[in-house]
Amino acid sequence: MNEPGLKEFLAESQARVEKALQHWLPATTTQPQKLHQAMRYVVLGGGKRVRPVLVYATGQALGVAPERLNGPACAVELIHAYSLVHDDLPAMDDDDLRRGQPTCHKQFDEATAILTGDALQTLAFRVLCHDASMETDSATRIKMLDNLAIASGSRGMAGGQAMDLDSVGEDLSLVQLENMHIHKTGALILASVRMGYLAYPNADQKQISALDHYAKRIGLAFQVKDDILDVEGDTATLGKTQGKDQANSKPTYPALLGLEGARSLSTQLHQEALDSLSIFDDGADPLRWLADYIVARNN
Amino acid sequence: MNEPGLKEFLAESQARVEKALQHWLPATTTQPQKLHQAMRYVVLGGGKRVRPVLVYATGQALGVAPERLNGPACAVELIHAYSLVHDDLPAMDDDDLRRGQPTCHKQFDEATAILTGDALQTLAFRVLCHDASMETDSATRIKMLDNLAIASGSRGMAGGQAMDLDSVGEDLSLVQLENMHIHKTGALILASVRMGYLAYPNADQKQISALDHYAKRIGLAFQVKDDILDVEGDTATLGKTQGKDQANSKPTYPALLGLEGARSLSTQLHQEALDSLSIFDDGADPLRWLADYIVARNN
Repeated sequence: MNEPGLKEFLAESQARVEKALQHWLPATTTQPQKLHQAMRYVVLGGGKRVRPVLVYATGQALGVAPERLNGPACAVELIHAYSLVHDDLPAMDDDDLRRGQPTCHKQFDEATAILTGDALQTLAFRVLCHDASMETDSATRIKMLDNLAIASGSRGMAGGQAMDLDSVGEDLSLVQLENMHIHKTGALILASVRMGYLAYPNADQKQISALDHYAKRIGLAFQVKDDILDVEGDTATLGKTQGKDQANSKPTYPALLGLEGARSLSTQLHQEALDSLSIFDDGADPLRWLADYIVARNN
Repeated sequence: MNEPGLKEFLAESQARVEKALQHWLPATTTQPQKLHQAMRYVVLGGGKRVRPVLVYATGQALGVAPERLNGPACAVELIHAYSLVHDDLPAMDDDDLRRGQPTCHKQFDEATAILTGDALQTLAFRVLCHDASMETDSATRIKMLDNLAIASGSRGMAGGQAMDLDSVGEDLSLVQLENMHIHKTGALILASVRMGYLAYPNADQKQISALDHYAKRIGLAFQVKDDILDVEGDTATLGKTQGKDQANSKPTYPALLGLEGARSLSTQLHQEALDSLSIFDDGADPLRWLADYIVARNN
């Protein structure tokens, strides 16, 4: 793993999307203040920004200037942030801690957390409609909006969360577990990569297929790694409660495959992701580093 | 009030949007089934369809064929439906009854209700991206998407709900009460009228200002009437719990102005709405009937 290269790319991309998010989120002095405070608390409270980084990295593989991708990068992060706020609610996963901080409903209250998630979702679509720096035609904007809507809705991320809730205490097969994750986390990761290449009108079918395949592999790898970390990580490093999946009787890769089996699946997915990038030159290095990072991270 | 004319227009518009919603909502056999069952339960369980009807009525005032407005009509109804599901949650207004039926979290469960609202919001944006019958260019679609996003977000409907929650037990002034309603219900009613005229690229500034003014007046009239009904209606006719506002110490127009004062405000807003339509011919009659209906309805 090229650690200095990855570190620099992560830092640059994170700073870039942070600035754009700062711009798009209403000020805490704007009415209604508590709602805007909560939106900023949730979105600007750190996070790895994996999805925005993927948008920029895909753009770089195709030579798209990063400033044209700030809008899509914000949009995917806002959808991700909204999903975390709602997933953490007592009626859902009932989590008190996120990134080492109280979750939104703990810091504010449940009603504010529900509305915060709602308004963050709306803002994601608004940014894609509005952002001028995207320098893109309306037809491309519609493709991006559509891509985001499909990835987020009942047959994407929200559907995956529904499957996840239904799966508690159930014995899922590997296929069912994979199907759940393809929806719950995979769809938005795929959408992030798609945002990157939608901004490049000349992407050919071979490039598109390769990038889609890459996104699907790292999307699953991300989840397998999350499950592994839930078993072997510790709460302080994770910034969220360790052992939560097991305590909740949630089906996981380590539960189905054993810890060693899950680790070897993670390695396999990582390799497949790298293989799919073979048609790209070193412009795709950030995508390669991200694949490395996703399976190597410890939180 | 032209009752036969109104009745026919309502029935036609309701049937039209119902068919379009049926088309856009995933089948209950599509995975995840419970989520799709809940989405259909909520959206297809009746309702006055005031916002879609406004889209069609505005279109008719400008000569836009109704079939070109099915997409926008669905979109505003989906946003409205999502807001009801979330507003009814225990952490928000805690309502058990909606349109005479158990609310979503009562019929299903809280987690499903949260996800149902989330996915309905996403679907609204998806429909506006996709609907082919709109026969509109991408730039107009973007305008509609943007209009919907602004109306729904933290400085529109979701913001209004946050203000509403903050206002429980507070003594609001008339200006503060109006500000809350302009956001909570007014923004989406205005967006509905705007969808209707955005579909007509030749609308001039005079027409646009008149329609915006009309929308703002009926938006407030709608809320004033809602507050009046909460005092004088009965639970069976309303399909929701009567006296709820008072029980929850919510500020209302009758509380601020007295029942007579609220009635006279409603009459005044109604007249202002009609006055703003004076530049239109009888194509705007459905808009006039709707203004009549909003202040005359008993549920």
